[in-house]
Amino acid sequence: MRKRMEGFPTLVSFKESRLKLAEVIKYRILETIDVALEDALNMVCAEDVLAPIDLPEFDRSAVDGYAVVAEDTFGSSPNNPVELKLIGRAHAGMNPSDIPRVNRGEAVEIYTGAYLPEGANAVVMVEHVNKSDGSIEVLYPVSPYQNVSKKGEDYKKGDLVIKKGTRIRPWHIGALAALNIPKVKVLRKPRLAILSTGSELVEVGSELKLGNVVNSSKPMLKSLLKEIGCEVLDLGTVPDDLEIIKESIKKGLSMADGVIITGGTSVGELDLVPEAINSLGKPGLVVHGIMMRPAKPTGFGIIDNKPVFILSGLPVAALVGFHNFIKPAVYMMLGLPEEPKITIRGRLTRRVANPHGVRSFVRVRVIRNGDSYYVEPFMLTGSGLISTLTKANGMLVIPEELEGYDEGEEVEVELFQPIDAASG
Amino acid sequence: MRKRMEGFPTLVSFKESRLKLAEVIKYRILETIDVALEDALNMVCAEDVLAPIDLPEFDRSAVDGYAVVAEDTFGSSPNNPVELKLIGRAHAGMNPSDIPRVNRGEAVEIYTGAYLPEGANAVVMVEHVNKSDGSIEVLYPVSPYQNVSKKGEDYKKGDLVIKKGTRIRPWHIGALAALNIPKVKVLRKPRLAILSTGSELVEVGSELKLGNVVNSSKPMLKSLLKEIGCEVLDLGTVPDDLEIIKESIKKGLSMADGVIITGGTSVGELDLVPEAINSLGKPGLVVHGIMMRPAKPTGFGIIDNKPVFILSGLPVAALVGFHNFIKPAVYMMLGLPEEPKITIRGRLTRRVANPHGVRSFVRVRVIRNGDSYYVEPFMLTGSGLISTLTKANGMLVIPEELEGYDEGEEVEVELFQPIDAASG
Repeated sequence: MRKRMEGFPTLVSFKESRLKLAEVIKYRILETIDVALEDALNMVCAEDVLAPIDLPEFDRSAVDGYAVVAEDTFGSSPNNPVELKLIGRAHAGMNPSDIPRVNRGEAVEIYTGAYLPEGANAVVMVEHVNKSDGSIEVLYPVSPYQNVSKKGEDYKKGDLVIKKGTRIRPWHIGALAALNIPKVKVLRKPRLAILSTGSELVEVGSELKLGNVVNSSKPMLKSLLKEIGCEVLDLGTVPDDLEIIKESIKKGLSMADGVIITGGTSVGELDLVPEAINSLGKPGLVVHGIMMRPAKPTGFGIIDNKPVFILSGLPVAALVGFHNFIKPAVYMMLGLPEEPKITIRGRLTRRVANPHGVRSFVRVRVIRNGDSYYVEPFMLTGSGLISTLTKANGMLVIPEELEGYDEGEEVEVELFQPIDAASG
Repeated sequence: MRKRMEGFPTLVSFKESRLKLAEVIKYRILETIDVALEDALNMVCAEDVLAPIDLPEFDRSAVDGYAVVAEDTFGSSPNNPVELKLIGRAHAGMNPSDIPRVNRGEAVEIYTGAYLPEGANAVVMVEHVNKSDGSIEVLYPVSPYQNVSKKGEDYKKGDLVIKKGTRIRPWHIGALAALNIPKVKVLRKPRLAILSTGSELVEVGSELKLGNVVNSSKPMLKSLLKEIGCEVLDLGTVPDDLEIIKESIKKGLSMADGVIITGGTSVGELDLVPEAINSLGKPGLVVHGIMMRPAKPTGFGIIDNKPVFILSGLPVAALVGFHNFIKPAVYMMLGLPEEPKITIRGRLTRRVANPHGVRSFVRVRVIRNGDSYYVEPFMLTGSGLISTLTKANGMLVIPEELEGYDEGEEVEVELFQPIDAASG
């Protein structure tokens, strides 16, 4: 057993920890399920979806107007309109057999989406026609297939509609609906179990005794997980007891794709989580202690081919650990690329220093100043202070190779709240 | 009754339409409800939340180490350590009355989160101590309150925690939990009813007859609405029948905060939606026909103090109408600022022209080229082609005062899909 109260056995660099994360996560493959279209939003498509039909399925009018033989309209102009005989109407949804055939010299009144009558090959827009009883005057010529949505012009049968691995967005749902595809194969949601450890912790809404601390990281992490499309299994809050922690982790592993444990991850005698993980299976913890601040005690490993994550119980460190390890892991499980971030550039109001080799995540407040922005860094201490998250609106990342940024230097900040919403 | 088949009675500029939207939407105020913390994610806080307690509620250790009287450690160094008598332990969660008082010359072993013993005023980190039986050697001095989370240092009782009008994010949930606040007052979700009109339309999964078109805009819009935090009431798809359309809109108004109608919004004889709206109450349609492309037939108005929106039935136009009118309206109802967009700059691969006075929304495909990007515009026609949405990954907005952009010009594009995900 490793000696306790001696600091982390091996601190690894941020970059190395991310490489190890990618090794760990490739273990896990989510199975595919069929879901109804309306449940598919933000799920990951698990197959190449090909168009089962042509779209449109038939030549249809793209406008309201008159179906004609294009050649009849050639040479028409407001001064020299072409007169055509009006022989009927074509409404959208009408059975094609109820729509008259258009011969040379004839026209059919037609509405957007209606079947293009046999014989017709173009539609004159309603604005380009003078109508009288039983006939129309065409003021401008149309070319063949003008104002017609041609059969298959949107998708041809067999066309790729959604590539496997794409996150299904609202317009994909529209495309699947248009092609009359009522369900789709997707990866099921990653299911993550979350356990908090700490004898001082009670759940929100409890009656507080002196010495109690309300568990704030677990509710925060649960909402973060739901927001990135996970199902969450809440394993509760347990005291600093090795056997109870082991049993809880085992339960989580049996029911979920991975387990997240908060607290008990430092190096004090009561930080039993690393010991619990290492005793439950091989290889156990792969990384424990990362050269970053906050969130140095973050770690992860593998038990029974399933990933296990340990996060600080302090909310700011838990959030930074989540964004840099849990969220990327979930995206890896889903085979998704990392999302682009909403960033803004501004000038630092004071110098921020960075220890050699450490990646720092500095909460900042971005303040608008006309067309430019000031970036006010908060103190780097206080990863226990959740108020720094509610007062900040951005995060500044200082890479490990930099000693910091100078006052007045322009930096890029990831925004996590609107600029106007910073309070306090 | 206005004359049919004659084009839009009055086209308004995009900017004017947005000003009118703001006038229309101020009518609507959502009531507030209490929700449990875990249901509060992304809801809008309806009150200033003040801290009901100090956080921390008591001085507690921020590290694992030894609680001491700081003054005892002054002058200590690795060559000249100060020896203190170890008189007990303080675990997190322990009842303070079970923790011994620390007098001069004494120390208590203490863990992160534990109550700071009476008499102690600082904590020496475990790494800065040599421990032996019954005593410790302190190697470095600590100043008063070093490594202590002081009572109230995160929030003092009465501090503003969340400002009224803030969208509740995961860290707000963390802060509320930390302060033992189990529920919060929020604006209830806007409830929008959606109706599709068009005799040709059938719902996805139907058996198709020749002439049928599957309704793709409604499923797309429903997922767009859910994504911005709305409850959606599906009023179904109805044929082009004035009375049925009126009855459906009335039903929607009686059950929801607003109604969205797709299709039947152009100027053909069967475009009955404007007539239905205007017959149901005053002022009726306020805007119908906007100088934008696609989505020119977009409109909105007021019946019984509730907003009514009309969108094109064509999916691309419906999406553009949604993003520019429905989404801003929902944000106005919630009192939220517009969200920043994820944008990227790149060079146009060909010229795009823009008609005078029109705001154009051009679907584009952004392609990575080393460190820079190409922006390939799609044809502006084909707002019926949903494939242009699944093949595009960005939207280029051309403001009404520009005649377009030249080939090679650098433009800013709003990304709506990852750059790698563009298929086809």
